[in-house]
Amino acid sequence: MKALVYHGPGKKSLEEKPRPVITASTDAIVKILKTTICGTDLHIMKGDVPEVTDGRIIGHEGVGVIEEVGSSVSNFKTGDHVLISCITSCGKCEYCKKGMYSHCTDGGWVLGHLIDGTQAEYVRIPHADNSLYHIPAGADEEALVMLSDILPTGCECGVLNGQVKPGDTVAIVGSGPIGLAALLTAQFYTPAEIIMIDTDDNRLNVAKTFGATQTINSATANVVETVKALTNGKGVDTAIEAVGIPVTFELCQSIIAPGGCIANIGVHGKSATLHLETLWSQNITITTRLVDTVTTPMLLKTVQSNKLQPKKLITHHFKLDEIMAAYDTFGNAAKEKALKVILTND
Amino acid sequence: MKALVYHGPGKKSLEEKPRPVITASTDAIVKILKTTICGTDLHIMKGDVPEVTDGRIIGHEGVGVIEEVGSSVSNFKTGDHVLISCITSCGKCEYCKKGMYSHCTDGGWVLGHLIDGTQAEYVRIPHADNSLYHIPAGADEEALVMLSDILPTGCECGVLNGQVKPGDTVAIVGSGPIGLAALLTAQFYTPAEIIMIDTDDNRLNVAKTFGATQTINSATANVVETVKALTNGKGVDTAIEAVGIPVTFELCQSIIAPGGCIANIGVHGKSATLHLETLWSQNITITTRLVDTVTTPMLLKTVQSNKLQPKKLITHHFKLDEIMAAYDTFGNAAKEKALKVILTND
Amino acid sequence: MKALVYHGPGKKSLEEKPRPVITASTDAIVKILKTTICGTDLHIMKGDVPEVTDGRIIGHEGVGVIEEVGSSVSNFKTGDHVLISCITSCGKCEYCKKGMYSHCTDGGWVLGHLIDGTQAEYVRIPHADNSLYHIPAGADEEALVMLSDILPTGCECGVLNGQVKPGDTVAIVGSGPIGLAALLTAQFYTPAEIIMIDTDDNRLNVAKTFGATQTINSATANVVETVKALTNGKGVDTAIEAVGIPVTFELCQSIIAPGGCIANIGVHGKSATLHLETLWSQNITITTRLVDTVTTPMLLKTVQSNKLQPKKLITHHFKLDEIMAAYDTFGNAAKEKALKVILTND
Amino acid sequence: MKALVYHGPGKKSLEEKPRPVITASTDAIVKILKTTICGTDLHIMKGDVPEVTDGRIIGHEGVGVIEEVGSSVSNFKTGDHVLISCITSCGKCEYCKKGMYSHCTDGGWVLGHLIDGTQAEYVRIPHADNSLYHIPAGADEEALVMLSDILPTGCECGVLNGQVKPGDTVAIVGSGPIGLAALLTAQFYTPAEIIMIDTDDNRLNVAKTFGATQTINSATANVVETVKALTNGKGVDTAIEAVGIPVTFELCQSIIAPGGCIANIGVHGKSATLHLETLWSQNITITTRLVDTVTTPMLLKTVQSNKLQPKKLITHHFKLDEIMAAYDTFGNAAKEKALKVILTND
Repeated sequence: MKALVYHGPGKKSLEEKPRPVITASTDAIVKILKTTICGTDLHIMKGDVPEVTDGRIIGHEGVGVIEEVGSSVSNFKTGDHVLISCITSCGKCEYCKKGMYSHCTDGGWVLGHLIDGTQAEYVRIPHADNSLYHIPAGADEEALVMLSDILPTGCECGVLNGQVKPGDTVAIVGSGPIGLAALLTAQFYTPAEIIMIDTDDNRLNVAKTFGATQTINSATANVVETVKALTNGKGVDTAIEAVGIPVTFELCQSIIAPGGCIANIGVHGKSATLHLETLWSQNITITTRLVDTVTTPMLLKTVQSNKLQPKKLITHHFKLDEIMAAYDTFGNAAKEKALKVILTND
Repeated sequence: MKALVYHGPGKKSLEEKPRPVITASTDAIVKILKTTICGTDLHIMKGDVPEVTDGRIIGHEGVGVIEEVGSSVSNFKTGDHVLISCITSCGKCEYCKKGMYSHCTDGGWVLGHLIDGTQAEYVRIPHADNSLYHIPAGADEEALVMLSDILPTGCECGVLNGQVKPGDTVAIVGSGPIGLAALLTAQFYTPAEIIMIDTDDNRLNVAKTFGATQTINSATANVVETVKALTNGKGVDTAIEAVGIPVTFELCQSIIAPGGCIANIGVHGKSATLHLETLWSQNITITTRLVDTVTTPMLLKTVQSNKLQPKKLITHHFKLDEIMAAYDTFGNAAKEKALKVILTND
Repeated sequence: MKALVYHGPGKKSLEEKPRPVITASTDAIVKILKTTICGTDLHIMKGDVPEVTDGRIIGHEGVGVIEEVGSSVSNFKTGDHVLISCITSCGKCEYCKKGMYSHCTDGGWVLGHLIDGTQAEYVRIPHADNSLYHIPAGADEEALVMLSDILPTGCECGVLNGQVKPGDTVAIVGSGPIGLAALLTAQFYTPAEIIMIDTDDNRLNVAKTFGATQTINSATANVVETVKALTNGKGVDTAIEAVGIPVTFELCQSIIAPGGCIANIGVHGKSATLHLETLWSQNITITTRLVDTVTTPMLLKTVQSNKLQPKKLITHHFKLDEIMAAYDTFGNAAKEKALKVILTND
Repeated sequence: MKALVYHGPGKKSLEEKPRPVITASTDAIVKILKTTICGTDLHIMKGDVPEVTDGRIIGHEGVGVIEEVGSSVSNFKTGDHVLISCITSCGKCEYCKKGMYSHCTDGGWVLGHLIDGTQAEYVRIPHADNSLYHIPAGADEEALVMLSDILPTGCECGVLNGQVKPGDTVAIVGSGPIGLAALLTAQFYTPAEIIMIDTDDNRLNVAKTFGATQTINSATANVVETVKALTNGKGVDTAIEAVGIPVTFELCQSIIAPGGCIANIGVHGKSATLHLETLWSQNITITTRLVDTVTTPMLLKTVQSNKLQPKKLITHHFKLDEIMAAYDTFGNAAKEKALKVILTND
C-alpha cells in the first residue's frame, strides 16, 4: 500500500509499505477514506519529536471503513464507517477509567508516533472498541476528519479547561487551525466576547467569519492595552494559548482578569516565565492538557444536529498520492491561506 | 400615584395610592418606566397566594429610574436607570452569601407579595444595592423587563438545574412564557435537540421560531412514544417541567433517560407521585428552585452582546393606566396569542 | 461445586452444580475465598425480583483468586487475588465511558441476578478487566468483601449524590448495613453532624460507635421535631434514605433544609408522594442511583491507608457450607444483632 | 490606646494612638480580645509591602467584642463577641457576589495594610456585616484567632484549589504555620497520604502529630526521588506550595502526577520557571489565590463540632503590651519552635 514515511529530520517519502495486519484480538484494520496533516506532523518532520523513528508511517487523523476486526472487538464489524481518534484508549487502565485517555497505559497518542499512522491506505487501530467511533448515517465524512484531533483538542484543552461560560470574555492567542477549533467550540457556551489574537490578518479575517467578536493583530497593535480597553481594564475571563511559545504564554498572563483561567493548548518546546510575583494573589487557574478525546461523542452529536460546522476548517483537497504537495501547501500555510487539507484515498 | 391593587380573590383595581418613601437607609425609590404581568400575578388574583393581603400593590418585574436612595446605598444614585430583580437580596445573610437569594432572610420574593410591588408609578426597593442592576447605556429597556424574573427563572430553575450540556437532548414541558424562557436560555449550552411539549399549537409554532428542534402537541400525540422514537428509545437527558401540575411532572418521569435530570420550574399547588419503584435504579436527579436571580449579571452580558433577544417574548403593549385591559389580554393568553405584555409609565 | 441455588419464592438449597467455564475471551473464573449475603438476596428469596429464575446461583459480592482467564483478559492472571464488583462493566459502551457502569449495556447488575453469582465455590466474571480489582498485598481480604457492594453503594448513592461537605448536617434514615456504610463513608467529607434514624436501638448504638453524632429512634421520638430542634429549625443539608419504603422517603422531605439534597439509596417497590406543593420553592435536589462502583479504586486506597475500617460491618462468620444457617441469621438481623455475615470457602 | 505601629523598614513600636471611630454607617468598632502575628507582618516590617506606609497599625487577625456599630449594621450589636476576617467584604460588588471577597472593590485585604489593623486595643472594621462572624456560645476564642486568616488560607488556597479528594496522595511543601493549616484542613477530605516537606525537623515532627503520613527533610533527602518511591513512580495528586520562593514552586512541578493540581499558597516576590516543555501534555492544573475567607462559616462549624482543633497551631502566649517580645519570638520561629503566638488584651 502507499504510505507517507518519515526517514529522519527533513526526510519523508510516499512509498510502498506492507498492509498492516491484526496483531491483537482488540485490533481493527481500517481502510483510510480521508485523512489530513496536523501541525504536529510538521514538528515530527523537523525532528522535534525524537520518539518518532526512521521508517514510521505518519498521521493520526482520519475516517475510514473497517476492513477486518480482531476476535474480541465487539463494537465494530467489517464494512462499518468509522472516525479514528488520535488517542488510543484501552478502556481498562486507571487513566482510561477516569476519562484521561491521553495517558492510557497501553495507548494515548501512539498513531503516527510510536506505531504506524493514518497517512496511508490502511492503518491498524489498537483497542478499536474504545478508539474508533461509528459515523452516523448520512454524515459528511470529510467534515468528521476534523473530529479526530483538532476539534476535541480545541474543545477540551482550550474551552473546557478554560471554563468558558455564558456572558464571559474569552481571548484566543493564535488563530491557526487549533485556535480556530477553540473559537468554534467556545461558542457552545455562548461567551459574550471572543477576542482573537494573531499576527496574520488573513487568519484574523477567517476568525471573524467563524464568530470572533474582536480581532487584534499582535504584530501591529499593543495587545495588552487593547484587551484592557475592551474589558474596562479588567482583562479576560479565559485566555486560551494556541501557539506554543513562551511569548504567547506570557501574553496570556498579562491579559487575564482576577479569577480567570489560562488554558494552554500549545505544544511547548521551552519553559516559560510564570509571573507569580503578580499572579500569586490573582486567583488564577492555569491548565495544560494533552487531548483525551472524551468529547468525541458530544462533538458527533453537535455536528449531526448542525450546531457545529467542522467543514469550515478545510481549505484544500488532495488525493492521497499527492500528499507531498499537500505537505508543501500545509507547510506554507500563511502564504497558501491554508487551514486544514483533506487527503482522499480512493 | 396610580397603582394596581389587590382587594381579595377576584378583585383588583387601578387606583390612587400614596407614593412610597424611604424607610431604611438601604432602600431606593424607583420610578417605574416599564413593567409587566406574571403568571404568578394571575394566581394572586385568584386568591391562590394567601400571604398577599387586601390593599397590596401587585407586580415584581420592571425597569425604572432611581428617584431617591437611602443613606447607605452606594451602588446607585438618583437618575440611574435600573433593572428591578423580582428577588430582594440583603447580601449579608447565610443564604445570600451562598448565592441563594431566593431564601434571603430579609428578602427573597417580597415585591408585590409581602410588600408593595411594581405595577405602579413608583416602587420602594429594599436592599437596593443587591436587588437592582445598572442598565447598560444604549440598552433596549423594554427587552430588559424580561430579565426581572422570567429569563433568570427559565435559566436557573430549568437550564442550570437541568444541567443542559452541548450535544444533549432536552424536553421542555410547557411552551408558555416560562417554558419559552427556558428554551431561549437552554441554547446557551448548545444542546443537539430541544423538544417542546404543549397543548397549544400556536405556542408550539412560536417555540419553533425560538429554536425548538421538535414539537409535540400533547393533546393529540402520545408524548412518551414520540419522545422515545426521537431518542432511540432512551428518553431525554434533561426534562424541564414548566407547567406546575402533577400530570406534567409525572410525564417528565416517563421520558427521562437513565442518568438524566428533571428540573422543575412549575409552581405546584398539589403533590405529585414519584415513581421510585422504577426510578430508584435510574440514576436520576430531580431539582426544585425558586429563582435566585444570580444569573442576572450574566444575562445582561448576553443581551448586550446580542446572544439573547428577550424582546421575542413580548407580544403586547399597554400604557400603565390600561393595566386592567392588559390583565384581560394576559389572562386570555391562548386566545390572544399573548406571551408577555409590556406596561409603560410615561 | 457447592452453590446456593434459588428455586422460586421461599425455596433455596445448597447443592452441587457444575463449575463455571470461560465462555467469552473477556471472562475470568474466580475461586471464591469469602462471600456474603446482601439484603437484596433476601428480596430475591421472597420472589420480589422476578428476573431471577429457578436454578440461579445467588450472590454478587466476594473476594477470590483467579483460577483461569480468557484470552483477551490483560489486567489479571491465574493466582491473582481479586475483589469482585457487584457491577459488571464492559468498559466500552456509552454508559461505561461516562462512569455509569450500573447501566452498562452488556453488564450492570448481572451477578446472582441474570447470571450465576458468588455464593458458590467458583464464579464466572464477564468483562473481568473492568469488573475485578487487584487486592493489595497484605490487605485483610475479609474486610474487602464490604467493597463489593455495600460501601460503594453507601458512598455513591448516599454520600456523593447527597453532596456531603465539611461542616454539613447529615441525616441517614435507616441504620442497617447500607445506612451504616453511608455513615462510614460520609465521614470522608467531615460533616459537623450525622444524625442516624432507625427503629432499632441496637443499630442506633452501633451507629454511635461508627461516628454518628446524634441518634433518633423513630419508633418512640417525633423525628421531624427532633431534627428541627437539632438544626435551629432549618433541617438537614443532606438526607440519605437507606430503607426503601414510602414513609422513610417522605420523612426525608420533612427534614430537608432549603437548598438541601435527598439522596435515595433504598430499593423501592412502591411509588412515594413528592410534596411539590411545599418543595417547589425550596431549592431541593433529589437523586436516585444504582451503584456504579466507580469509587472502588478510591475505597481500596482509603482502606489501605486505614482511613476506613470496613471490618466493623462484619458481625458473624460461617463456612460456605453453613450458608443455610447464615441466611437464617441474616434474615433475623434485629434479633441476631447481625450486620454483615462472612462466608468462607476453604 | 496601645497599638503596634510600622515606621518604615525595620522600625516598629508599641505606642499610644487615638481610638478608632465609626466613619461609615457600615463600620463597627471592635475591642480586641486576642490577636496574633502573621508571616505577612514580618514581610511588612522588612519593607516588602510598600503600600504599607509610615504610621500604620499592623495586624489583620483577631477576636474581640463589639464596642459600637454604625447605623446600617444589622448583623451585630454592642457586646457581641466576633471573629475578625482578614478580608473585608462589601457584599455588593461584582467580586463579592461571586464569593471572591479577596478582590472586593471596596475591601479585600485592607486591615493592617491600607487601613489600621488589629494589633491594638481597638480596631475599626469596615463593612462589618460581611467581615465579622459571630462567635458561638462556649467557643474557645483563642482557638478561633486561627480562623481569621491561616486556616481559611490553608483550606481555600491549598486544599480546595488543590482539589484534595478521598484516597488521594497530597504533598505539602513547607511545614510552617500555613503549611500546617493546609495539613489540618486537607484531612477534611480524607486523602490516603499526606507527605510533608520542609528543612526543619522540628516542624516535620509537628506535622506528624498533626496527621502527616510521611515527612521529607528537603535539606538532607532527594525529594523528587523520595516522592516517586512513595507513589510508585507517579507523583502526587496534589502539591501544595506553602513557602513562596521559586525553588519550592518548581519542586511542585517535579513531583506532580499526570492529571494533578499544584495549588500555590505562597506569597511570591519573584517569578518562577514553568516547565511547559514537559508539563504541556501532563493535564496539570496550577492555581493561585488570595484567600477569600468564604470557608469561614464552614470552618466555624468544624471547630464547633470538634472536627478541627485550631489550638494545635498556637505555641506561645503574650500580653498585648509584650508584643515587641512576641515579634522577636515569632521572627525566630525555628529557634523558638514557634508556630502561632497569641497576644491577649485585657
